[in-house]
Amino acid sequence: MYSWIDGQPAQAINLQSRALAYGDGLFETIAVRAGRPSLLEYHLERLALGCQRLAISADHGLIRDELCRYASLLGDGVLKLILVRGDSQRGYAPAAGAAPRRILQGSPLPVYPAQHAEHGVRLFPCSTRLAEQPLLAGLKHLNRLEQVLARAEWQDAEHAEGLMRDVSGRIIEGVYSNLFLVRGAELLTADLSRCGVAGVMRAALIEHAAKVGIALHITDLSLQDLEQADEVFVCNSVYGVWPVRAFASLNWSPGPLTRKLQAIARTLLDT
Amino acid sequence: MYSWIDGQPAQAINLQSRALAYGDGLFETIAVRAGRPSLLEYHLERLALGCQRLAISADHGLIRDELCRYASLLGDGVLKLILVRGDSQRGYAPAAGAAPRRILQGSPLPVYPAQHAEHGVRLFPCSTRLAEQPLLAGLKHLNRLEQVLARAEWQDAEHAEGLMRDVSGRIIEGVYSNLFLVRGAELLTADLSRCGVAGVMRAALIEHAAKVGIALHITDLSLQDLEQADEVFVCNSVYGVWPVRAFASLNWSPGPLTRKLQAIARTLLDT
Repeated sequence: MYSWIDGQPAQAINLQSRALAYGDGLFETIAVRAGRPSLLEYHLERLALGCQRLAISADHGLIRDELCRYASLLGDGVLKLILVRGDSQRGYAPAAGAAPRRILQGSPLPVYPAQHAEHGVRLFPCSTRLAEQPLLAGLKHLNRLEQVLARAEWQDAEHAEGLMRDVSGRIIEGVYSNLFLVRGAELLTADLSRCGVAGVMRAALIEHAAKVGIALHITDLSLQDLEQADEVFVCNSVYGVWPVRAFASLNWSPGPLTRKLQAIARTLLDT
Repeated sequence: MYSWIDGQPAQAINLQSRALAYGDGLFETIAVRAGRPSLLEYHLERLALGCQRLAISADHGLIRDELCRYASLLGDGVLKLILVRGDSQRGYAPAAGAAPRRILQGSPLPVYPAQHAEHGVRLFPCSTRLAEQPLLAGLKHLNRLEQVLARAEWQDAEHAEGLMRDVSGRIIEGVYSNLFLVRGAELLTADLSRCGVAGVMRAALIEHAAKVGIALHITDLSLQDLEQADEVFVCNSVYGVWPVRAFASLNWSPGPLTRKLQAIARTLLDT
């Protein structure tokens, strides 16, 4: 399907775009089923927070309308929204009155091996560490060289995801996903106030865990926490939840809490 | 003047570009005088180092030729080269065989107030801190949100540049420039192994300071080092050297070592 820029079909973006020059913008990757964007309110909320923190003044009503219109044409697939601060000549200061631009791109739903969701995935131990930058932490912004470097560390199909730590050694997230640990009857997930992307599925699972009475802690996670975890899983807004079955010499089996959250994720993506 | 993509006139880049999606590339901003790119060898060297560290395999002979051809058409101005890893569909892993793309853009030489070079500039105290990421430190890559945030901190014309510190409080650089301190007969400039952009004019001044027998230390710099400095200046590859006359409550006058380096920079840009 054609991409849109500011609501119009387009295949290219002008060379003055601040996305090209500085990665000056945000994005959302949204699963679309039967013409409806999944987890739309969570995506819009994260986008609005990102705009607030980067001081990008966008028309969020217009963005919502456009996402829905594009999704209805896409049917089933993945909708990527890139919101750019605008255009610029040279220099980090935006041109006066530069208007944000909305880029929408559609692609087919990725087909993952069924065993990822059933038996779990192996995580690659990435040596690329995440820098600590509280001003950008949590946002899905366009400065993604750390993820590019991390993803380039493995080529084999044996690893479906990589585990990223921060420069201080804390366990943070997957390259494409957020990570949850199960300890006893409790869920743990990393505090993302220094680095990491606060995923939309993570936000939804945090909210729904509370609704069904599962205790959850957002906290700093060490390698020892991972070693002592009873269950481990990763999540994102396209595939939902995958159990983690292995990381380095550690092994887990998909456990009851993982299955519970996986079912919640499936419901969230299907409705 | 028209921009070029891969040697051909172009005004737009396709939406699959990894520069747009992830800031996955490098850039160089090159002063051009009378059709010749200034400090070309330094620019090419930094670009090659960046390609090596990001594992972008580019044809550096072709890049050199193209820069020279474009510069000769530009005459006087600023030439910006963006080197993108290539195109991609969704996902941080590049498409197999994705070829790097070269974008060249020309703009007029900026006109700065003459007093910047004569009497010096005032530095704005940016509260945006630089994150420590050794894997990207020194490179002029396309992930520049920290500079965008820092530059947005001031709007007045009183400040020609902003001073950036890292998250640990070390003095690192300007938003658009590198910083040097003079202490006695010695030059000091920040170690850029954790963060910062290793500017081309900085590299040239370090080399030429050694040639004319000026002692220079590349080291960690504290706020105290700045307070105790006899002279301070900033440099970049477009304007050369500007003395710093003020930062917060601190004041300096352009001193003899600053003038000496300024003359060296002028020679480097003119030849």
